[in-house]
Amino acid sequence: MKIDDLPIRDELRGQSPYGAPQLDVPVQLNTNENPYRLPEELVARIAERVAEAARDLNRYPDRDAVELRTELARYLTRSTGFALTTGQVWAANGSNEVIQQLLQTFGGPGRRALGFEPSYQMHELISRGTGTEWVAGPRNADFTIDEAAAVAALAEHRPDVLFICSPNNPTGTAVARETVLRLYDAAQAVKPTVVVVDEAYVEFSHQDSLLPLIEGRPLMVVTRTMSKAFGAAGLRLGYLAADPAVVDAVQLVRLPYHLSAVTQATALACLEHTDTLLGYVRRLKQGRDELVERLTAMGLEVTASDSNFIQFGVFEDPQAVWQAILDHGVLVRNNGVPGRLRVTAGTPEENAAFLQAVATVIKELSTV
Amino acid sequence: MKIDDLPIRDELRGQSPYGAPQLDVPVQLNTNENPYRLPEELVARIAERVAEAARDLNRYPDRDAVELRTELARYLTRSTGFALTTGQVWAANGSNEVIQQLLQTFGGPGRRALGFEPSYQMHELISRGTGTEWVAGPRNADFTIDEAAAVAALAEHRPDVLFICSPNNPTGTAVARETVLRLYDAAQAVKPTVVVVDEAYVEFSHQDSLLPLIEGRPLMVVTRTMSKAFGAAGLRLGYLAADPAVVDAVQLVRLPYHLSAVTQATALACLEHTDTLLGYVRRLKQGRDELVERLTAMGLEVTASDSNFIQFGVFEDPQAVWQAILDHGVLVRNNGVPGRLRVTAGTPEENAAFLQAVATVIKELSTV
Repeated sequence: MKIDDLPIRDELRGQSPYGAPQLDVPVQLNTNENPYRLPEELVARIAERVAEAARDLNRYPDRDAVELRTELARYLTRSTGFALTTGQVWAANGSNEVIQQLLQTFGGPGRRALGFEPSYQMHELISRGTGTEWVAGPRNADFTIDEAAAVAALAEHRPDVLFICSPNNPTGTAVARETVLRLYDAAQAVKPTVVVVDEAYVEFSHQDSLLPLIEGRPLMVVTRTMSKAFGAAGLRLGYLAADPAVVDAVQLVRLPYHLSAVTQATALACLEHTDTLLGYVRRLKQGRDELVERLTAMGLEVTASDSNFIQFGVFEDPQAVWQAILDHGVLVRNNGVPGRLRVTAGTPEENAAFLQAVATVIKELSTV
Repeated sequence: MKIDDLPIRDELRGQSPYGAPQLDVPVQLNTNENPYRLPEELVARIAERVAEAARDLNRYPDRDAVELRTELARYLTRSTGFALTTGQVWAANGSNEVIQQLLQTFGGPGRRALGFEPSYQMHELISRGTGTEWVAGPRNADFTIDEAAAVAALAEHRPDVLFICSPNNPTGTAVARETVLRLYDAAQAVKPTVVVVDEAYVEFSHQDSLLPLIEGRPLMVVTRTMSKAFGAAGLRLGYLAADPAVVDAVQLVRLPYHLSAVTQATALACLEHTDTLLGYVRRLKQGRDELVERLTAMGLEVTASDSNFIQFGVFEDPQAVWQAILDHGVLVRNNGVPGRLRVTAGTPEENAAFLQAVATVIKELSTV
């Protein structure tokens, strides 16, 4: 029996599951993970909080995750200077699940979502997965958003949900506050549109969070994750900030008790150690800036990065370069952006190994 | 700003989130939780395994949860005598997410699901949430499935997905092996139909698991959960057993890295303590049988139960009886089944408190 012998939905036929290859390589710089392990003090605190939660594991978890949402609101308030309450925050298993809940509520069959490509592929995949039509909007050659073309696309396609990824994955590009404001207004002028600003990587940005823009804009939603800045990709904790009505609305589609007691306990422990974890973020930003400098010095075209990863090129055959770098023990990512590859900023040692590999590969290429 | 001011999907308007009231009452017998806390030895083992996982928390979890699925397959093999492999098992955040993934794959817009009501309400709600049309099939007066009427419903409605809940929630009714076989064949005779046998409560049943029926039936899927028999409702770990092609197919719609490293670690720890946890199940089954006997002796009509809960009645005003029992400090569930209430089997002390409350309430009612 094969997949195609099953009565699966027609649009799934011939598809393969999303996900980067998980290869066992010394230096893994392909999935934008934080290279710093959690400090042992935090590991011990996680064990302690999880043990406490495990003593009530026979009971369902807090369905509304009130304590966790309160602490997330405190973190956002502290880090952005914009005061948020528990009722403005919602959490789920990764920002993917947050996005899925938003699309189940505001997208779905007969509705349309628009994003500016190249961008985070899951925006398109979750749109399709929820029956939402997907429209790919344009970008400038430097991967910033072309405002005029974007406004024209909004008028033409009339999306119900608009995705703005800032900093953008896989290009690293931050979106200017003014651009977001103009797109929000342009979208609302056509029809009520939920504008999802995906800030998964914002802690690594040179510019401030766009989160304060939710004030007075009930259809503006900012999504976040603990996977990157909090070094907790394995935890799968995504969240959003928005008008309390949006938080109420996604509760109509969330699966009951979607967030386990152990996930809530672990996230709360991590939030107790915010200062330490944000210290790693400062180190990674510095390493990222050095990588940009060094890659540029090698004569490569490097896309301006506000994230913990860098897009670089231009290569005639990026897949061949990807393989050549891998042959030197360093795994980077080919996202399919023409001529480009993406590398995650790692530890100083990982960055050095990567730069060494690239230098060697460039030399090999130029002598062929 | 209120929900109805937002551009939510029309079918969500006027809805409220699914979930039983979470009231702070001494005796909570409303959500079919296992009343026995995990033993301290297991709590310690969870802390140990989670600490181990937390040391790699900066990395994404095993996307395919191979170790966990292998151990779940071993548990199913041991407990049913039917040999299963890792490739026949899939896991997600609660059986709700398993069911959602099945409906995204085999249901969705333009497709239809059928279940025999009253049954687990989430079958309907997740169907609707995934854009799948829902059809309510009939039951006999004793809440067993009326085979002739069921076969007629299959011919009339031609569902793409058929739900058979055994033991059925909220009635407690197990479905006979022969009935499931007849319904599977009758469904396939009309069109290829995925038959989902929901065995969330099967460890409490007097009859054997229906799991061996997946042999030679590629469209038969059995769903399970660790919430009940494993006393781990807070963990949110559901799973399914089916043909490996079905497991491959749901991976087309699963969100990448849907199952966190802490969830996988906690579930693995619980599976190490299977024998202890199944000891609690034996105690609960005995308590359940005693409850059935005592309620019957009080002159109540009790639905035959193969689960860790019991449906009882018949009351003219079940909501008033629910409230009266609650006034005596015991929380049971009103699932909206005409004239009936549902109580979860608890500890001997909880069962005694419940029986005492019911006896008092009946007396009060008869003297009014």
